[in-house]
Order: sequence, then C-alpha cells, then structure tokens
Amino acid sequence: MSYTQIPGGVTAAQGFLAGSVYCGIKAGNEDRPDIALVYTPQPAVPAATFTTNRVKAAPVRVSMAHLRSNDDVRAIVANAGNANACTGVEGIDSAKRMAAATAEALGLRCRQVMVCSTGRIGVSLPIEKMEKAIAKLPVAVKPNGGRRAAEAIMTSDTFCKEFAVELELEGKTVRIGGMAKGAGMIDPNMATMLCFITTDAAIGRKHLQNALASSVDQSFNRITVDGDMSTNDTVIMLANGAAGNKPLRHPTPAFKLFQRALDHVTRNLARMIVEDGEGVTKFVEVHVNGAANLSDARKAAEAVANSTLTKCAWFGGDPNWGRIMDALGYSGARLREETVDIFYDGTIAVKGGMASKTPFAKLQQIVKQKKLTITIDLHLGSGEYTVFTTDLSTDYVKFNMGE
Amino acid sequence: MSYTQIPGGVTAAQGFLAGSVYCGIKAGNEDRPDIALVYTPQPAVPAATFTTNRVKAAPVRVSMAHLRSNDDVRAIVANAGNANACTGVEGIDSAKRMAAATAEALGLRCRQVMVCSTGRIGVSLPIEKMEKAIAKLPVAVKPNGGRRAAEAIMTSDTFCKEFAVELELEGKTVRIGGMAKGAGMIDPNMATMLCFITTDAAIGRKHLQNALASSVDQSFNRITVDGDMSTNDTVIMLANGAAGNKPLRHPTPAFKLFQRALDHVTRNLARMIVEDGEGVTKFVEVHVNGAANLSDARKAAEAVANSTLTKCAWFGGDPNWGRIMDALGYSGARLREETVDIFYDGTIAVKGGMASKTPFAKLQQIVKQKKLTITIDLHLGSGEYTVFTTDLSTDYVKFNMGE
Repeated sequence: MSYTQIPGGVTAAQGFLAGSVYCGIKAGNEDRPDIALVYTPQPAVPAATFTTNRVKAAPVRVSMAHLRSNDDVRAIVANAGNANACTGVEGIDSAKRMAAATAEALGLRCRQVMVCSTGRIGVSLPIEKMEKAIAKLPVAVKPNGGRRAAEAIMTSDTFCKEFAVELELEGKTVRIGGMAKGAGMIDPNMATMLCFITTDAAIGRKHLQNALASSVDQSFNRITVDGDMSTNDTVIMLANGAAGNKPLRHPTPAFKLFQRALDHVTRNLARMIVEDGEGVTKFVEVHVNGAANLSDARKAAEAVANSTLTKCAWFGGDPNWGRIMDALGYSGARLREETVDIFYDGTIAVKGGMASKTPFAKLQQIVKQKKLTITIDLHLGSGEYTVFTTDLSTDYVKFNMGE
Repeated sequence: MSYTQIPGGVTAAQGFLAGSVYCGIKAGNEDRPDIALVYTPQPAVPAATFTTNRVKAAPVRVSMAHLRSNDDVRAIVANAGNANACTGVEGIDSAKRMAAATAEALGLRCRQVMVCSTGRIGVSLPIEKMEKAIAKLPVAVKPNGGRRAAEAIMTSDTFCKEFAVELELEGKTVRIGGMAKGAGMIDPNMATMLCFITTDAAIGRKHLQNALASSVDQSFNRITVDGDMSTNDTVIMLANGAAGNKPLRHPTPAFKLFQRALDHVTRNLARMIVEDGEGVTKFVEVHVNGAANLSDARKAAEAVANSTLTKCAWFGGDPNWGRIMDALGYSGARLREETVDIFYDGTIAVKGGMASKTPFAKLQQIVKQKKLTITIDLHLGSGEYTVFTTDLSTDYVKFNMGE
C-alpha cells in the first residue's frame, strides 16, 4: 500500500472547485486576482490548526468560531494584500462580512465558510469593494481551478505552492491535495502561512483533526525562516467523502496510509515555503539527535536554525561551526561540550566539542552548496528533532526594510 | 552626594596599571597589540559574572576556578584574535599557561590572575608565542595605560570603550573606571563582550559581588544586537582599597552612592557596545510597561528587540508597528490585544491594539532618526523592563557572512 504524487492542488480531490477574482485590495496590484475560493458542493468535515500568537487576526478568530459551531464546512475564502490583523471590532465585522458574502453567493450558511487574510497588519479591509468581488466568485470556481486559487493568495511568494497525492484505500481511489503560501514570518507554530488541504476521503471529524494536527506538527511546525510567528497562520482541511471509501478510523492500516500520504503533502508544501523564503539562497536541514529528550532536541535544533550569526555564515558559505556550538550552548538543551559531534552532509566538522580533522576547504565546499544538512549528535539520550531552515541574506534585509 | 564623570578607564582608579603588547595571535593583524593586562600591585578583592552559555570557553572555566579559590586577584590578562573556545583539554591547558606566564612575569601566584580571550571559536591558541609576549607585559603597563589595554582587546569594535567616574565617600575620593569590548554576539546574559572594571574603593568581597551582579543585571544583561549569547562573556571587577575609605557595606548611604556610580559606568559601557554593534545604523530603546509582572515585561521587550523583521523595518525607517504587535503576541507575555498602546518617541502609533490617528509620515520621520525609543504599554499590571537594541542592516549580514 502506497501513495503516488499526482498533478494539481486543492482541486485534485473529487468534488472540489476553486478559483479566484480580482478585487484590488492592495493598491498597485492592478491585474492580479487577490481573492481565492475553495468550495465543495457536498457536505464536508472540517479540521484546522491556527497560529498560537496571542495577537490573532480577525479572520483567525472568526474561523475558529465557525469551526467550533459547525460540522459541515463548504468553503474557504481568502484574500491577499491585507492581513485584517490589529483592526479591532471593525476587523471582526469585516471578516464576518467576508464569510457572509461568500455564503450568500454560494447559498450557504455564514458558519459554513472559513475566512483567511494575509498581507500588511493594521490596515482596514476595503470590505465594500470585497463584497462586490466575492459575489462574482461562484462563476469563477472551476473543477480544475486549484492553481488559480493558489496564485491569488501569493504575496511575496515567488512560485505557486501546490502538491497532491493519490492512494488506494480498500479498493477506492482517494486523493489529497493542498495549496500554501508562505515567504516571510515563517517559524515553528506556523507563520504568515496559509495552507488549504482537501481530500475526497470519508473520515470522521475527530479522526481528521487528529490526522491534521499530527501532520502539521511534522511539517509546518518544523520550518523557520526568520523566527517571527505571524498573527494569521491557518491550516484548514476539508474532507467531503466523495471517494466513497469506508470512513477512516485510527488506528486501522487504511488510516495509517492516509496519515502517511497526508504527511507527504504537508511536508512537501512546508519545504516549498522554506525554499521560497524571502531572500533565501540556501536550504538547511538541522537534525539533532542524542538529546536528553525530545524537548531538548527541539530547543537545540531551533536555536541553531534561528541563530542570526549562524544563518549569516551559511549565506557566506562559511563553515563556522563555532557559532553552532555557541547556539547549542544557549539553547537551554542539556549538553556536555566534550560529547558534541557535528556533521555537515555527513562529513564530521566537530568531534567531541572540538574541530575535527576535516580540512576547512572540504567543509567550505559543503556549505557553499544550495542544500545542506547539519546533523548534531549530543550523545546524551535518544531525543531527536529536525528543523528546516534557511540562510539569512542581504536580500532578506532589503526585502523587509519597508518601502 | 553625587558622582561625576572623569576621563579614562581602568587606570582612572588609584593603584591600577594597564597596558598591552603585540603578539600576532590572529594572522594578518601585523601591528596591533593583541594582549592586554590590567594590574594592581596592592591586594585587590575580585568580583565577576560569566556567560550562562553551557558551552564555556576555556578561559571562562579557568577564571571561574581562580575566582572560587582566591580572595586576592591582582591581574587580568586578555587576548583578542582567538576565543580559546571549543578547544578541549588543550584549551584549558593554554588558558592556565596564559595565567601562569602572567603570574610569573609579575611575581604572583597563578590563581591571582584572571584570564580572558575573545575572537574566533575552535582554533588552538598559539600559546608558546603568547608566553613570550606575556613576559614583556610588566614593562608595558603604565599608570595611564588604560586606553592601550582597551584598544588591545578590540575585535570588530570601531571605537574604544572606556568610562570612569569619581565620587566622594565620607571625605575620601573614590574612583570607578571600566573598559569593554563588544560588537557581535551581543545578547542579554552577556555576549562576546568583555568588561573589566577597577575601583580604589575599600569594599568586602561579598558586597562587591552583589554590587557588580546588580549592576550587570541593569546594563549588560539588557542589551541585544543579534540575540546570540557568546561562550566567552566575562565581567571582572577588582577593588584595591587605595582610596582609604571605610569599607563599604550594604545598605549604607555610602554603599548606595557607590552602587549608583557603578551602575552609571556599566550602563554607559553597555550603551557603547550596542551603539558599536556590527553594521548598526540605529540605536533603539525598547521599554515595556504595564505588563502583568517583571518576567512578562522582559519577555515582551526581548521578543521585540530580537525580532528579525522588526529590526529590518527599523533599518529601513519603516514604522511597521504590526511587526511589533506580532512579536508581542508570540513573546509569551500575557496581553490583551485591545489594551496595547505603542509609542514612538512619545508619539502614539498604536492605541488599543489598532492604528492610532498619527499620520504615517510623522511616524516615519521618527523611525528614520538614528536613535529611537519604543514604549509599549500593556495596561495589565506594573511589570516594567527596558532593552537596548539596534536595527538589522545589510552590513550586519555582510560583516557576519565569513571570509
């Protein structure tokens, strides 16, 4: 039993439509569609995970409320160009109006619509204009419109992020497809990142939520570009049962295969987000093993992945393992300096807390590559954790220094 | 009762000598002295604080041991160009040999010497060459040699950091003088930062340690450039009693004045370190008040001060308060979005978690200045904390991307 990649994103699964319309939310974006819709005419079970930032954007609050009070979610509406965050009561009202306008256009109840926004914080949504644009969404959605929806929510993304797989479950063909946007503010516990996943599998709500939560933990919660966690992060999954399989239940073999396939989708989307980080020139996998426990492994991996100095060294192709040792030291993870080994793509750089015999030029050659795996063995226990991260470039700074 | 600033640094206090010699520890530094000595011929009481990084450089370990076992410390020897960190047993041996060579040259016991190193991690010290250079230190130290010592430990520092004050204590003139180096890896709990402070006050060891610890907490522990905490941070203070005052004891008025004067010295040195951060173009004071408690105030201030995105916005003169709200949200500090106020140099930018009526151009004008104070009021309690930080520039990245 296995899964295979297929083309497409959110409309790869049966019974899902998607598309986009142009509204002109952000001044200057004259042609590009900026409102996306994912829709299924059939009843669909929802699952979602949201940012843990205490400052939550209005659409996050509204979607959380809709999710709590409703078992049948049919649509996700999302806009780019404005985050609708730090916008107070008016922002909540605008997010509700986005959902209501979508519901009206599709003949749904307001609570059957999830709503997302991404863009600049602290600016009011042009909601009247958006309501008019949203009214045109029903004619814009198509059974092959996944890509158009994915393109509409791109902000500083340089490429469109879609991934889909197909699997056989007890004689039925099941599909899982997803779309995502990322770029800046990417950090564990999700960041300015939206991800919508659809599946035609039949699965109960609790099982779907568990599968999604576990999958997010293995993927989006393990990526970091700049350590900043956003106010708007949202992963939403809808399952409409169109595949006609026997409802999936944990811990059957069918459920496990479904979980593996879902993990494959989220990991690939997460990887695309990191690779498309603002100003990124290098993709780095930081793998810690031998930590005293999982929590220590995570602290160690995240400290290295977020160390400004280490990321600058990677940008320059400098195998400065001293900065990795330094970051491990302040990470809060237990360690004994004299048992720390560090490998660059399998080549030993640090042996027992000191320089290995590997020539500097050899390490330099590895760090100059576009992809790199740093493996850190603390030799204390069996805690393991992996974080996917990037370098920190002059272009990142230029990109984020404002207008 | 007050204190006044006087010229000079570690040799401003009576009975202290300082100076430097050239050794050539780092290839390429052909002319610049790179070993510094601070010395007092009279018995002196020591106090010190060290990095809390679990990866501690060899000189930190050796100095900690010397401090534990000895009440009379006469000399501090420090080199630039090599951190002697991650150098294993050989590194410890080299640090001990630095102390021993200094002791021999000055006729002291080895344990009366504190030893410090700063520079690249993971490279062996050229100890034979250093021993020869250290032998020349006794003729290099002078009663006015403070500046020469301060210059010798500069690494990427662009200016020499010295500060001294004079105060009258019960009819006696007491002086406190200090020198510091900083530049990169500056973060709360100290960073690649060395600071040596001398005083001719008479004070018992416990009182001196308490005074120094309190002073460091108000100064060096509140500065951050890049959030990276180094393996070598050390603050050492020596008090030789040459002023002839009645020994200072907590909590007399004389002790309190001494504490205030010492705080003035450490705060000024800390401020110089931040202002001289690598590639820094802007000095930013982040002040949080109204937090639920001190710990929350600290979390909030440090999250804002270390947010990569916020620092990039400051560099570009962009008053992007949304990134500040975002950082507050993930800081871990309790907050209610709708009660957060943010001021830029006293001008309100955020009122109740939303954009104030202050025009964007007005905020932009403030953020474009070289110095800036961000005041955040959470309106929850009485917790307050201040962090001194910088922007994050393209030059910072260039500086730290290696050779």
